[in-house]
Amino acid sequence: MRATTIHAPFDLRVEEVPDPVVRDPGDAVVRVLRACVCGSDLWAYRGESARTPGQRIGHEFLGVVEATGPGVGGLRTGDLVVSPFVWSDGTCDYCAEGLQTSCPNGGFWGSGGSDGGQGEAVRVPFADGTLVRLPADAASDDRLLTALLALSDVMGTGHHAALGAGVRPGSTVAVVGDGAVGLCGVLAARRLGAERIIALGRHPARTDIARLFGATDVVAERGEAAEAAVRELTGGHGAHGVIEAVGTEQSMRTAVNIARDGGSVGYVGVPHGSGTGLDLSVMFDRNIALRGGVAPVRAYLPELLADVLDGTLDPSPVFDLTVDLDGVPDGYRAMDERTALKVLVRP
Amino acid sequence: MRATTIHAPFDLRVEEVPDPVVRDPGDAVVRVLRACVCGSDLWAYRGESARTPGQRIGHEFLGVVEATGPGVGGLRTGDLVVSPFVWSDGTCDYCAEGLQTSCPNGGFWGSGGSDGGQGEAVRVPFADGTLVRLPADAASDDRLLTALLALSDVMGTGHHAALGAGVRPGSTVAVVGDGAVGLCGVLAARRLGAERIIALGRHPARTDIARLFGATDVVAERGEAAEAAVRELTGGHGAHGVIEAVGTEQSMRTAVNIARDGGSVGYVGVPHGSGTGLDLSVMFDRNIALRGGVAPVRAYLPELLADVLDGTLDPSPVFDLTVDLDGVPDGYRAMDERTALKVLVRP
Repeated sequence: MRATTIHAPFDLRVEEVPDPVVRDPGDAVVRVLRACVCGSDLWAYRGESARTPGQRIGHEFLGVVEATGPGVGGLRTGDLVVSPFVWSDGTCDYCAEGLQTSCPNGGFWGSGGSDGGQGEAVRVPFADGTLVRLPADAASDDRLLTALLALSDVMGTGHHAALGAGVRPGSTVAVVGDGAVGLCGVLAARRLGAERIIALGRHPARTDIARLFGATDVVAERGEAAEAAVRELTGGHGAHGVIEAVGTEQSMRTAVNIARDGGSVGYVGVPHGSGTGLDLSVMFDRNIALRGGVAPVRAYLPELLADVLDGTLDPSPVFDLTVDLDGVPDGYRAMDERTALKVLVRP
Repeated sequence: MRATTIHAPFDLRVEEVPDPVVRDPGDAVVRVLRACVCGSDLWAYRGESARTPGQRIGHEFLGVVEATGPGVGGLRTGDLVVSPFVWSDGTCDYCAEGLQTSCPNGGFWGSGGSDGGQGEAVRVPFADGTLVRLPADAASDDRLLTALLALSDVMGTGHHAALGAGVRPGSTVAVVGDGAVGLCGVLAARRLGAERIIALGRHPARTDIARLFGATDVVAERGEAAEAAVRELTGGHGAHGVIEAVGTEQSMRTAVNIARDGGSVGYVGVPHGSGTGLDLSVMFDRNIALRGGVAPVRAYLPELLADVLDGTLDPSPVFDLTVDLDGVPDGYRAMDERTALKVLVRP
C-alpha cells in the first residue's frame, strides 16, 4: 500500500510500504476513508520533535474494517470505525478509568513499527479496545464523515481542555490558540454551558469559525495587550477557565495571566520549551489550577459521537483544505504556512 | 505593647510597639492568647523572603476581642476568636466564593503597617469577615486551645492540599514534607477518607506523628530512591493524590514523579525557586493536575472547627515546643535547626 513517511524536517514522502496484516489475535486492519493533519504533526515536520527517517506519520483516521484477528469480538469486516489517536487495550485499570492514554499496552500511531493514519490502511492493535463503531450510513454522508473524523483527536482534545478548564454552565472561558484544537475547545466550552467564551486570535478565517462555534468575544491583541483586553472584558478578574491549546511558554504564560483567581487552565497544547513559562508563584498566590495533558479521546468518544450523530455538535468547519494522499506534503506546507487551518486527507 | 519584629536575617527582636487601636469602623483589637511560628516564617527569618527592617511577623493567632469598631456586628468584647492567616472583608465576590485569600481588601498579617501574630495584641481589619468565634469555655482547655490554634493556618492549609490532591474515600495519597503542614495534610487526607497514606520523612519524631495522624506507610528515602519506594508501594503506579508541602523545585519534582497517571498534586508549599522543577512534558504525558496555592483557611474554618470541637480532629500534636514572647527568637532558631517541629507562643 501507499503511506506517508517522514525522512527529515520538511521531507515528507508518499511511498510504497508493506500492506498491513493481522499479526496478533486482537488486531484489525482498517482501510482509511478519511485522515487528517494535526497541528502536532507540524512539530515533527519542522524537526522540533525527533523522528526516525522513514517513520510513518498521521494519527487521526476513520475507515472500514477490512480484516480482524480471531481475538476480535466486537467488530466485523465492513464495519465503519473511527480511531482515537492512540490505541489502547480496553481492559487495563487505566482504560477502565477512562485514561486510555496511559494504557501500558497503548501506543501512538506512527510510533516506531506502527502504521500511521496518513496512508491507505492501518493495522490496529487491540481493535476492540481502540476502535469505535460508527453507523454504516455515515459513509455516504460527506459532511457527517468529516465531523466524525474530528472525534479522532481535535474534538476530544478540545473537550479535554474544557474539562481541565473546569467549564460549567455560566462559566466565562478564554481560549488561547486559534488552531483546530482551540476552536474545538470553543465548541466544547459552549457544549458544557459556558456563558461567555473569549477567543484569542487575529486571523478572520479562524475567528469567524470561533464565533460560529460559540465565541462571544474575540481578542485580536497579543501578549500583554491580550491579557489586558481579557481583563477588561471580565471586569478586571480574568476568566474562570482558560483553554491552552498551543503549548509554548508564551501561550502558557498568557493562559495563567488571564485566569481568574481560583480558576483553572486546561492545557492540551503539547508542551514545547521547558516549564519555565509557568510562574508557580503567580499560580500559587492566585490559586490557579493546571489540568490537562494528552487527551483520552477514547473515553469521550461515545458521548461526543452521540452529539455529532444527533446534529447538536459539528466540528467539521475546522477542515478547510482537502487533499489526496499524494497531496499530503502540500497539506503540511499549507498548515505550516498557516494558509490552511486543518487538512483533510482522502487516500 | 510588646511584639516580635524582624530587622535582618536571623535578627528577630521582641520590643515595644504602639498599642493597637480601632482605626476603621470594622476593626477589632484582639489580645493574643496563643500564637505560633510557621515554616513559612523561616523564609523571612533566613532572608530568603525580603522584609523591611522593623516589620512585624507572625500570622497565626487566637485570642480575646478587646475592642470593636462601630461597624462590627458579629463580635463583642470578650469573645474568644481565631484568625486565619490573612484578613478578608467577607463581602466581596471572592469571599463569597470561598477564596478569601484573593479578597481585594485582604492582607497578610505582618505585611507593611499591619500587626503580626507574634505579639501581645493585633488590630484586625474587617473583623466580621475575618475572625471566627470560638466557644468561650475553650479558653480554659489548654489542649483544645492548641488544637484550635492550628486552624489559623496549618490545619486549613493541609486540608487545602488534600482537596487539591483530589483525596476521596479509598484514595492512595502520598505526602511530601514532614513539617506541620505536611502532617496536617496526612490528617486531612485521613479525614477525607484516604485508604492509604504514604508519608515521606526520615525524622522519627515527625513520622511518629504522621502515623498517629493516619499514615499507613512511611518512606524514609529521598529523591529518586523515595520515588522508587512509593512506586513499589503502589504496584508501580504512584499515588492518586500527592500533597506537596515544601515548595522547593526538588519537592515539586518528587511530587509529580510519585503521582499516578491522571492524579493530582495538591501544592501548598510556598514556591521557592522558579517553576523549572515542574516538568510539564511529564505532567502532560501522564495527565497530572496541579492544584492548590495559598489556602483560603477562612473558608474551611467552620467545618474543621466543628470537627475539632467534637473531638474527631486533633492537630495539636504538631506543636512540640512552647515559648513566651521573649522566647520567640529561640523558637525560630529551634525550627530553623529542625529541633522543633512547630513552636507555640504564649505571649
